[in-house]
Amino acid sequence: MTSIGIFGAAGRMGRAIAQAAADDGLTVSGGTDRTASGELLPGVAIRNDPGALAQASDVLIDFSVPAALSAHLDAAVAAGRPMLIGTTGLEPAHHALIDAAALRIPVLQTGNTSLGVNLLAALVEQAAARLGDDWDIEIVEMHHRYKVDAPSGTALLLGEAAARGRGITLADHGERGRDGITGARAKGAIGFASLRGGSVAGDHQVILATEGERIELGHRAESRLIFARGAVRGAQWLLGQSAGRYDMKAVLDL
Amino acid sequence: MTSIGIFGAAGRMGRAIAQAAADDGLTVSGGTDRTASGELLPGVAIRNDPGALAQASDVLIDFSVPAALSAHLDAAVAAGRPMLIGTTGLEPAHHALIDAAALRIPVLQTGNTSLGVNLLAALVEQAAARLGDDWDIEIVEMHHRYKVDAPSGTALLLGEAAARGRGITLADHGERGRDGITGARAKGAIGFASLRGGSVAGDHQVILATEGERIELGHRAESRLIFARGAVRGAQWLLGQSAGRYDMKAVLDL
Amino acid sequence: MTSIGIFGAAGRMGRAIAQAAADDGLTVSGGTDRTASGELLPGVAIRNDPGALAQASDVLIDFSVPAALSAHLDAAVAAGRPMLIGTTGLEPAHHALIDAAALRIPVLQTGNTSLGVNLLAALVEQAAARLGDDWDIEIVEMHHRYKVDAPSGTALLLGEAAARGRGITLADHGERGRDGITGARAKGAIGFASLRGGSVAGDHQVILATEGERIELGHRAESRLIFARGAVRGAQWLLGQSAGRYDMKAVLDL
Amino acid sequence: MTSIGIFGAAGRMGRAIAQAAADDGLTVSGGTDRTASGELLPGVAIRNDPGALAQASDVLIDFSVPAALSAHLDAAVAAGRPMLIGTTGLEPAHHALIDAAALRIPVLQTGNTSLGVNLLAALVEQAAARLGDDWDIEIVEMHHRYKVDAPSGTALLLGEAAARGRGITLADHGERGRDGITGARAKGAIGFASLRGGSVAGDHQVILATEGERIELGHRAESRLIFARGAVRGAQWLLGQSAGRYDMKAVLDL
Repeated sequence: MTSIGIFGAAGRMGRAIAQAAADDGLTVSGGTDRTASGELLPGVAIRNDPGALAQASDVLIDFSVPAALSAHLDAAVAAGRPMLIGTTGLEPAHHALIDAAALRIPVLQTGNTSLGVNLLAALVEQAAARLGDDWDIEIVEMHHRYKVDAPSGTALLLGEAAARGRGITLADHGERGRDGITGARAKGAIGFASLRGGSVAGDHQVILATEGERIELGHRAESRLIFARGAVRGAQWLLGQSAGRYDMKAVLDL
Repeated sequence: MTSIGIFGAAGRMGRAIAQAAADDGLTVSGGTDRTASGELLPGVAIRNDPGALAQASDVLIDFSVPAALSAHLDAAVAAGRPMLIGTTGLEPAHHALIDAAALRIPVLQTGNTSLGVNLLAALVEQAAARLGDDWDIEIVEMHHRYKVDAPSGTALLLGEAAARGRGITLADHGERGRDGITGARAKGAIGFASLRGGSVAGDHQVILATEGERIELGHRAESRLIFARGAVRGAQWLLGQSAGRYDMKAVLDL
Repeated sequence: MTSIGIFGAAGRMGRAIAQAAADDGLTVSGGTDRTASGELLPGVAIRNDPGALAQASDVLIDFSVPAALSAHLDAAVAAGRPMLIGTTGLEPAHHALIDAAALRIPVLQTGNTSLGVNLLAALVEQAAARLGDDWDIEIVEMHHRYKVDAPSGTALLLGEAAARGRGITLADHGERGRDGITGARAKGAIGFASLRGGSVAGDHQVILATEGERIELGHRAESRLIFARGAVRGAQWLLGQSAGRYDMKAVLDL
Repeated sequence: MTSIGIFGAAGRMGRAIAQAAADDGLTVSGGTDRTASGELLPGVAIRNDPGALAQASDVLIDFSVPAALSAHLDAAVAAGRPMLIGTTGLEPAHHALIDAAALRIPVLQTGNTSLGVNLLAALVEQAAARLGDDWDIEIVEMHHRYKVDAPSGTALLLGEAAARGRGITLADHGERGRDGITGARAKGAIGFASLRGGSVAGDHQVILATEGERIELGHRAESRLIFARGAVRGAQWLLGQSAGRYDMKAVLDL
C-alpha cells in the first residue's frame, strides 16, 4: 500500500492531508515539522528528520514554509522519492531549486491543489481563447470575513488563465476596485470584484458577457478539505511519473 | 377608461411608458416635450402644452428633467390631477415643490419604479433589522459595459435599506472598491462590488453571511421596460388616493 | 452561567448541539439517550435519567424521537424548565402533548432551527403577499447525493410560506417533477425542482418571476452545524419567556 | 460587401436575422417565404423565388420548415452558394439531403446558433471527460411561462455533451422529474430540473458536484436576438470555407 510522508505536518493543511490520506485508505508514514512534535495520527509520529521520512515513504507532500524547501528537496532526491509541493510564497530561487530537483525526481508544484479550480482555470482559458474581446470578462469571488487581501490568489489565477487564453497580460488589463465615476468599461479589460463575509471557504465565478448573453463559469469550495484531498490525489498520480516538473493540469490530463 | 398624460414624452422612458400604457389597455391622452414634437403613438401627439395635457388626462407621469418640474406640478395642481414623478437628479428645492403640491393632489415620487426592486428593498430592510451584526452584509450588482458610475443607484438604495434596518448610516459603514491588503472585514460594514459587461439591464444581490450560512436576496431586470410598467402601475394606483406624497412602497402596500 | 440539558444527546444533532453550546460559552449539564451512554463532552455524562437532567439544567433541548417526547415533557414540567423541541416526525398526538405542557412552561417546537431559513420563510411569505399572481413562484433546492426524498422538507416549508402569503393552499397549487410535454405553466402554481449531488448541506432558492424581472430569495447552509447553533440560540431566548408555545419566528421577533 | 439571402424570411427568426445582418453592416439581398410576401427591411422584398434569391446572394440562411429544405438546397447548389440551416424538426431524410449538398457547397446545420451555448457545450464535454463519475452532473434550466416542454432542447444538448465526455449515453443515464421517495442518487446519473416563470429567454446551468466542491457552468440568454446574431456570424464564417458539412463548433474553432 502506498505510504505518504508529510513535510510541515503540524500545520492545518498538514493534518488535513494526513486525514485525507487515511480516509483514502493510504498509509501515512509520518511527518516532520520544525516547531512541533507529537502524533499526526494515532501511532504516526511527527519528528524533525526529513531524511528518515523520505526513506520511509513512497511519495512526499510538502505544505511547510519556503525556507524549509531546500532541505526537503534534498531529502526527496537522496531517497529517490517523488514530491508534491503546495507551499506558498515561493521566490524565483525556490523555483530554481525545484527545477534542479525535477531533473532527478518527479516534482509537482502548484498554488492550488483543488482539482475543481484547476479544471475551471483550463475551461476559462479556452473560453477566453475562443470568444473575441467583444465578450467582457469579469471575475467575482467571495471569502470569509477574516481574509485580509483582495482579490484572492485563486481569482488572480483565473484571471491569468483568461489573459493567457486571450493572448494578453493580466498586468496590463486587470481592472480592480471599481468605485465612483469610472467611465465606460475599457475594451479588453478583465475586471475583479471581491466579497467578504461569514465563513465562506471560497466561491469564484468568471463571467463572459456580450450583447444579449452571458457565460458563467464558477467553483464553490464547501470546506478547505478539498485542498487536502487534491494534494493526496496529486501525490498518487506522481508515483507513476518519470523525473520532471508537473502541475495540477497534468493530473487532470488537461 | 383611464387616460394617462406623459411629461417628457419624447425620451426613451417617455416612449416606453406610452407603450406600456397602451399594452395595458389604457388610453394615452398625449405627451409634452420641450425639444421634440411629433407622434407618441399613432394618432397621439406630442405638444409642448403641459396645461392642456393635464386637463385632457386622468393622471400624469413625469420622466422629464428637474428644470421642467415646477411647470408640470403647476399644471397638475391647476387641473386637480394626480402625478407620478420618476425624473432623477432632483435637488432639495424640487422636493419642496413636490411637498407643496402634495397638499393639493396625490404625488408619487420615486428613484426607481420597478415593483421588484422596491419590494426587494423592503425585504432587505427587514432582514437587516432581524439579524444581528454577526451577519455581514454585501451588495453586488452587474450592469452593461456602458455604465459610467459604480456602485449603481439601485445598489445604494438597497444599501440604504440595509443600513436603515440595522439602525446605522450607510455613509459611516459603506465599504467600496476593495483591492489589495484590506485587512479583515470591519464588523458592521456594508460592502459593495460592481461588475460591468455586455448588455446586462441590471442584476442586484444582497448577501447576508454569518458562520455557516448565507441569505441571498436578489433582483434581475431583463430589460428597461419594467421601469415603464412600474410607472404605469404606480399611476393607476395613484388615481384612487387622496392628496399627499407617496412612494412605490405604498403601491406595494408595504 | 446558563446550563443546557440535551435529550437525545448521543445522536449527530445532540452532539453538535453540545459542541455549539460549549463554543458559545454555555455550560452543558448533561444528556440523555435511550440506547447509548458515555461522555457527551469531556466530563459531561450521558445518562438515561430525564428527571435528573431537567433538575440539573436551566433549559432543555430535545432532538430525540417522537416516542420519547412524553417522558421528556413530563420531566421539563415537573422541574419547571423551558424546552426546545427539534424532534421530527411528530404526529397530532405529540402536538397535543406540547400544547398541554405549554400551559405550564415555555415550549418552542420547530421543524428547522436555522435562523436563516426561518427568516427566509418570513420574507417569502411577504413577497408572495405583496405581488399578484402574475408573478410565478418557483422553488429549487440542492442537497447531497444521499438524500432520499424530494423536494426537501425545507423546500416544502418555503412553499407553505409562499402559499400562505398568497392565500392559497400548497396542496392545490404545488407543481412537482416537471418532465415531458407539460403544457404552459398553470397560473398561480408553485413549482418545485430538486437537484442532488456531492455533499451539499442544503441550498434553497425561491424565484418570483414576472414579465421582464425576477426576485430571487435564497439560503445556503455550509454545514449542518447551523441547525445546532440555531437550537442553542432558541434555547437561550426561551429562558426569558413565560409559559406558552412558540416557534423560531418568535426568536427572530418576526 | 457581403449580401445575405434568407429562406423563411417572414417568421420571427427570419426577421430577426435580417435585422441582425443590417446591424452588422451587411447587405440583405432579400427573402423568401411560402405564405407571406412584403418587405423584409425597407426596400428589401420577400418573394417566393429561391433560385433568384440564391443567385442574388453571397451566402444563404434557412430558418424555414423541413418540407422546404430540398428546394432551398437545390437553389444553393445551383448557384454555388454556402448555406446555414437553423430549421428545426429535421428527419434523417433531410440530413441525407444536407450530406449530398455538402459534397458541392459548404453547409452548416445546427440546432442552436448561439455562440455562447455551443461554447458551453464544449466546455461541459471536457469537464465531464476530465472528472470521474464521483462528480455528479446536474442540469437545471429556466424558461418563460409559455414553454410547453421540459427539459429544454438546449438542456438536452448539454446533457448529450456531458454524456459524450463521460463515454456514456444520455438515454441510459438521464434522471428527470425527481419527486417523492427517490432513493439516493444513482452513480453516474445526469439529472435534469426545469423551472418555468415570467419571460425568461433561457438560462442553463450544468453543475458538477463532488465531496466538498462544485463546478458550475452556465449560460444566460437575455433575448432571442442572440440566435439571430449567431446565425449571421455563422454565415459569414461559412463564406470562407470549402464544400463540406459543418456545425457551430467549427465557427468557434472548437
